[in-house]
Amino acid sequence: MIAPDNFKVVTEELSDLKEGEVLIQIEVISLDPAIRGWMNAGTTYIKGIEIGAVMRTFSAGKIVASKNADFPEGTYVSGLLGAQEYCVSDGKGLTVIDISKGRASLHLGVLGMPGMTAYFGLLRRGEPKAGNVVFISGAAGVVGSTVGQIAKIKGCTVIGSAGSDAKCNYLKEECGFDFAINYKTESIDEKLKEYAPNGVDVFYDNVGGPTLDDGLLNLAQGARVVICGFISQYNKKEIYGPKNYMKIVSARGVMNGIIVFDYVAEWPQAVEEMSEWLSSGQMKAKEHTVKGLEKFPDTLMMLYTGENFGKLILEI
Amino acid sequence: MIAPDNFKVVTEELSDLKEGEVLIQIEVISLDPAIRGWMNAGTTYIKGIEIGAVMRTFSAGKIVASKNADFPEGTYVSGLLGAQEYCVSDGKGLTVIDISKGRASLHLGVLGMPGMTAYFGLLRRGEPKAGNVVFISGAAGVVGSTVGQIAKIKGCTVIGSAGSDAKCNYLKEECGFDFAINYKTESIDEKLKEYAPNGVDVFYDNVGGPTLDDGLLNLAQGARVVICGFISQYNKKEIYGPKNYMKIVSARGVMNGIIVFDYVAEWPQAVEEMSEWLSSGQMKAKEHTVKGLEKFPDTLMMLYTGENFGKLILEI
Repeated sequence: MIAPDNFKVVTEELSDLKEGEVLIQIEVISLDPAIRGWMNAGTTYIKGIEIGAVMRTFSAGKIVASKNADFPEGTYVSGLLGAQEYCVSDGKGLTVIDISKGRASLHLGVLGMPGMTAYFGLLRRGEPKAGNVVFISGAAGVVGSTVGQIAKIKGCTVIGSAGSDAKCNYLKEECGFDFAINYKTESIDEKLKEYAPNGVDVFYDNVGGPTLDDGLLNLAQGARVVICGFISQYNKKEIYGPKNYMKIVSARGVMNGIIVFDYVAEWPQAVEEMSEWLSSGQMKAKEHTVKGLEKFPDTLMMLYTGENFGKLILEI
Repeated sequence: MIAPDNFKVVTEELSDLKEGEVLIQIEVISLDPAIRGWMNAGTTYIKGIEIGAVMRTFSAGKIVASKNADFPEGTYVSGLLGAQEYCVSDGKGLTVIDISKGRASLHLGVLGMPGMTAYFGLLRRGEPKAGNVVFISGAAGVVGSTVGQIAKIKGCTVIGSAGSDAKCNYLKEECGFDFAINYKTESIDEKLKEYAPNGVDVFYDNVGGPTLDDGLLNLAQGARVVICGFISQYNKKEIYGPKNYMKIVSARGVMNGIIVFDYVAEWPQAVEEMSEWLSSGQMKAKEHTVKGLEKFPDTLMMLYTGENFGKLILEI
């Protein structure tokens, strides 16, 4: 369990810049479900955040002072800059962002980690073919809605599940999904049988829990299950394991996961393609913006209760 | 739940052979965990056994009368001939077996479906490389012990789990496993951390339940999880879902399954290779034989309690 009182707002004096360093004034902070995993002790694909350290987040901002020729003053950058107003960086891990391709916050969403997670998770691990049926759980989140929109561009039939009628309408009317299932009022299993009578070819799961089980029940032969996250389980003491995992065998399917950092070298090309889809209107990017650094703890909690509607951004 | 009183021994008159048919006198019947799955209603990768029908089993025997030129009298065959003394067949689905490569019962074990499941599951789905660590649950069964022996031939370090010290000794002393874990007296998680400090590259799971979870906890980067069965769960009302399935993501691993029938066209080559390993002594095949058709129900139950030690064969 995490709770708002696990966090503390601390004010510290900025140190003078050393040779090679830059000072970034952070404008927007991204709240992503993955943060919860980073807060666990130990190392998985990335080191856990230590107690007392600045909260690790993707953030973006403008360089306001520079002793590094690669990053002149005025350059916009993103990276794991943390939940803070200013960040001193030696330039390692900084990504220069092109504000002409979209405002800074988009580079934390569709054009940033969540968008890249959607792009590489769907295209590289889910391998959708035109005519496939793609089912996305947690579809109204930035990853889910981006997966669905890419799948539509690739000629798939797209089904999403979300937690309210407003989110379902958004998926169908703004994101172009073929079908949306409100998991709070409808049975995902029943609706999948109705919308995908021949089964689901690609199941992109952001949710875990019983939703994962319902998706597994409805796999088509040769299905690819892409595990991206398990937002329904992050704050649970006891994880719900998918009881229907044997369906992967009878469907001759495969379950794999997506770690977006594995594709960092290819992000620029993907950003290019995604920004074209944004400017042509083939892709929509909804944001949910909260203002003020001190709101970080409460805003983070929204992710796990499903309160946010669109990419959750903290603006400074 | 299945229980012995779900079965009935019935005596029927043999009908005269029609043109194209053969009469097979069955000598040995194979009891395989997969039978439990076939007893469920509906169709998965194969149609469920109907109530009142002859129990579907792999069996082997000799053709004692023939009106089919492809299968002359005296030929040994195997196939889904059922748990019965005689079987009339039109030849479809019959496999001619070469008794010179091994007695009939071996063609139901190492040289039959379980052996082929081990062979194709490990080699095609697990893709072991020399130097890899392979962990096999339910390792003392015919599939598990065969997987381990093939993995040794391929130059892997092999760890197996089983339910008694006698079975563990058998794995190490007769099957050449490097390590064996008695899951009833030892912690699989602790022992895997000791025996495979860099993790498990191929996890071949026959068991499911908490054992599957312990294996998932110990995956190496890029691990392949091959789901073959879940013997610990067949007779449970509520299936235990693997709570650690997210480890597949952080290990950049993949979970898939094996359906041996998908490789039927390649069985003959595999039988050839396996029979060479048997005759060179690189592979051992332990059998547990029970005599008498009327013992079928009680003998089948042994599979789910772990009472058998070696390939379970009913001899007529």
